Amino acid sequence: MPSTLAHDSVQSWMKKVPAWEHKQDHIERVFEFDDYISGMDFVNSVAEIAEGANHHPDMNISYAKVAVVLTTHDKGGLTESDFEVAIRIDNLVD
Amino acid sequence: MPSTLAHDSVQSWMKKVPAWEHKQDHIERVFEFDDYISGMDFVNSVAEIAEGANHHPDMNISYAKVAVVLTTHDKGGLTESDFEVAIRIDNLVD
Repeated sequence: MPSTLAHDSVQSWMKKVPAWEHKQDHIERVFEFDDYISGMDFVNSVAEIAEGANHHPDMNISYAKVAVVLTTHDKGGLTESDFEVAIRIDNLVD
Repeated sequence: MPSTLAHDSVQSWMKKVPAWEHKQDHIERVFEFDDYISGMDFVNSVAEIAEGANHHPDMNISYAKVAVVLTTHDKGGLTESDFEVAIRIDNLVD
């Protein structure tokens, strides 16, 4: 598993996922859908990516709004794995 | 849609869902599973109940731990719908 990224590397990765917010030790993006079922379809697609990558974001579902939070708990901060998964999640919707 | 419940009614309903915590305007229960896939199966079962009842709890997924939060947003508090859905969610696991 990769180690946590230096500040400069985080800044560099952030350019690849501009829709995400960098907050302290994690990145977060809120996805909004037209209805609950569409939101749940997204949640299941994220879960599939997460299992494949063995890297599981937190997800907070509030009706058709899904907040996805990525951090590397074992390392106590952001690693390349977080951004790799974020890019794959972006590809689901963008 | 039913109106918010009086304090006594909430106390009475809480006896039917003792695993849930009553916090201000909502009730919450955290469900823990052996692995991520089992947690996601549960999330999808809750989503099916939610769609059927047209009453959608918030769900916070953190690996194999799923927190379910029920309140009736339109009414600004707890209604019978919250407890009816809570009982159906409990039936998935208990």
